[in-house]
Amino acid sequence: MREFIMYSSKGATAPEFFLKDLPGSGGRMDLVARCVISALWLSRDMRRDSRIVFSLNGPPDPPLAISFDGGELERVSPDERNISIWIKKTLKQRKDVGGDWLETHKGIQISRKSFWNLLEERKDKNLYILQEEGDDIREVKPRGEDIFVLGDHIGLPENGKFAEKFGAKRISVGPESYFSSQSISIVHNELDRRGV
Amino acid sequence: MREFIMYSSKGATAPEFFLKDLPGSGGRMDLVARCVISALWLSRDMRRDSRIVFSLNGPPDPPLAISFDGGELERVSPDERNISIWIKKTLKQRKDVGGDWLETHKGIQISRKSFWNLLEERKDKNLYILQEEGDDIREVKPRGEDIFVLGDHIGLPENGKFAEKFGAKRISVGPESYFSSQSISIVHNELDRRGV
Repeated sequence: MREFIMYSSKGATAPEFFLKDLPGSGGRMDLVARCVISALWLSRDMRRDSRIVFSLNGPPDPPLAISFDGGELERVSPDERNISIWIKKTLKQRKDVGGDWLETHKGIQISRKSFWNLLEERKDKNLYILQEEGDDIREVKPRGEDIFVLGDHIGLPENGKFAEKFGAKRISVGPESYFSSQSISIVHNELDRRGV
Repeated sequence: MREFIMYSSKGATAPEFFLKDLPGSGGRMDLVARCVISALWLSRDMRRDSRIVFSLNGPPDPPLAISFDGGELERVSPDERNISIWIKKTLKQRKDVGGDWLETHKGIQISRKSFWNLLEERKDKNLYILQEEGDDIREVKPRGEDIFVLGDHIGLPENGKFAEKFGAKRISVGPESYFSSQSISIVHNELDRRGV
């Protein structure tokens, strides 16, 4: 199982954002959607062993966490608009949810978990924080069952200084500052090559 | 200069496709747009040394070629919808264009060049065809001024058998069948690491 946890600092936490304006009204929901595509799709198949959880921290009702599970997902298409439609549908059920996961559609869940909750729950796992100043992913040997944590265009809270607290290792995917979705593609490629 | 040439088998060749339905009416224009994002954007900057040309071969008026040049582009945002709006605007000028490039907006050009024209014009350059059965990109040493050719979800014409004719080398980015946009991210990452 490969899991990605993405921190979205501005991602909308109510369904009233516009599909015509995912970057603005959605708080860069286009970027979140592209991360879902990178995390769960291959050209001719889905990555059934992968999951992505994104922590939405924009207005009006943060925090919320939504997960897309490649092993369960059905009827979702890999384009920004379609994924955003499913996120909107899921956000409609935010009033019914607390700290546990609620399945809103097959393979999609929502919860009131904060970004810290998500990390806390995984502190005994192999946590990797994707950051430019980390060790090169090609030199790091993931041990399987790995969790990769990354920020959006703004970055991670406290610039990722919380990494140590959760026993996380900082790793870098390359010498440039990539989009989150590009970083996810590079991580997958590295793990594919190792057969992890 | 890094250049990507993408073959889109169904990409719309008139502006009457719907922004609400890029996958269907646009002939997977969502996929084309994501390739543009992967080819030309980093998280905090554009790749000013990169260019992408896509060959559109869908109805009603193929073939058409459109190029986006990272060194010139202005006012374009890296999301599927915005890039598709610029493609629509550009397609409106298709009646004015022949075999030469016509600049429709800063950094965006259109031409009647076919996929074969695009390859023929570059046969003296370092052409690489991205295919699963190619040599591992990590073992291949691009010499700079490289051109990477790739297909869409359907693949390349003749399954890329034309590679030899144009003196092109087949290379692979990894053991899975990736989306074109994912492959572009992996190619960029490899070149970034080598400082090419």
